[in-house]
Amino acid sequence: MDSEQTTQKRAFHDNFRWEGVAHMPYKQDGSAPFKDISRQVLFQEPGMGCELRYFEMDAGGYSTLEQHEHAHAVMILRGCGHCLLGDVVVAVKPFDLVTVPSWTWHQFRATRGEKLGFLCMVNQERDRPQLPTAQGLAALKSVPAIARFLEG
Amino acid sequence: MDSEQTTQKRAFHDNFRWEGVAHMPYKQDGSAPFKDISRQVLFQEPGMGCELRYFEMDAGGYSTLEQHEHAHAVMILRGCGHCLLGDVVVAVKPFDLVTVPSWTWHQFRATRGEKLGFLCMVNQERDRPQLPTAQGLAALKSVPAIARFLEG
Repeated sequence: MDSEQTTQKRAFHDNFRWEGVAHMPYKQDGSAPFKDISRQVLFQEPGMGCELRYFEMDAGGYSTLEQHEHAHAVMILRGCGHCLLGDVVVAVKPFDLVTVPSWTWHQFRATRGEKLGFLCMVNQERDRPQLPTAQGLAALKSVPAIARFLEG
Repeated sequence: MDSEQTTQKRAFHDNFRWEGVAHMPYKQDGSAPFKDISRQVLFQEPGMGCELRYFEMDAGGYSTLEQHEHAHAVMILRGCGHCLLGDVVVAVKPFDLVTVPSWTWHQFRATRGEKLGFLCMVNQERDRPQLPTAQGLAALKSVPAIARFLEG
């Protein structure tokens, strides 16, 4: 009974870590398309169509600018920042909801001098993300608000 | 562009309500198997295997005691309380994770004199919950900790 209880309830610890959940910082070198971000997989259950992950960036960090066929359903949990969503940049704060539809360029950035953390629900079976080409990136940057966002 | 932005980001408002999300209190009469609980569907997207809902109970409220084939993946968001999970009763606090496996009796209760709110990820296609029979309920109550929990 105790072991079941341990498995089925996992306690929240300080600093957005959880009992029994591996904290996975992404390795990065100078050319990485992301900065100072980590991932924790909170739920990945056989028989469920989706998994739930928690991503967190340090102040000034950002997720990969990418697009893919699968959608994301995001809830901010920690801190304020901004995200690029298609052709708009929006400010986000704790518990805001963000839907990232199919084939929509998106990136999250911890722009406010504090950590930014969010939940992301996604299908367990999904396609691989695509990064922008140099040409695609130039097109995105032709929007002044997006250029300012991407230059941090 | 503005209308897309409105759809894709939905702001968190005070008191755990969200822009564009319907707040649905469950109707109840004296014989209802739940008490003082409401539901808000945060994400229900075509093409995603799961949906994400937010349930909230007033102090003293509780969700239906039920079991079903489908699993739940729960994160507490607001307040402290307890949940029944199979044959154990566990205390929960904000950001704790609870996995409700297939065919596991479960109920959440706002036992601490404050609201208790949680996220629940669940498959969009799922079976209907089953309630306990009188005999099943008696069997659950044969465990003293469960009897105390169910009697509030």
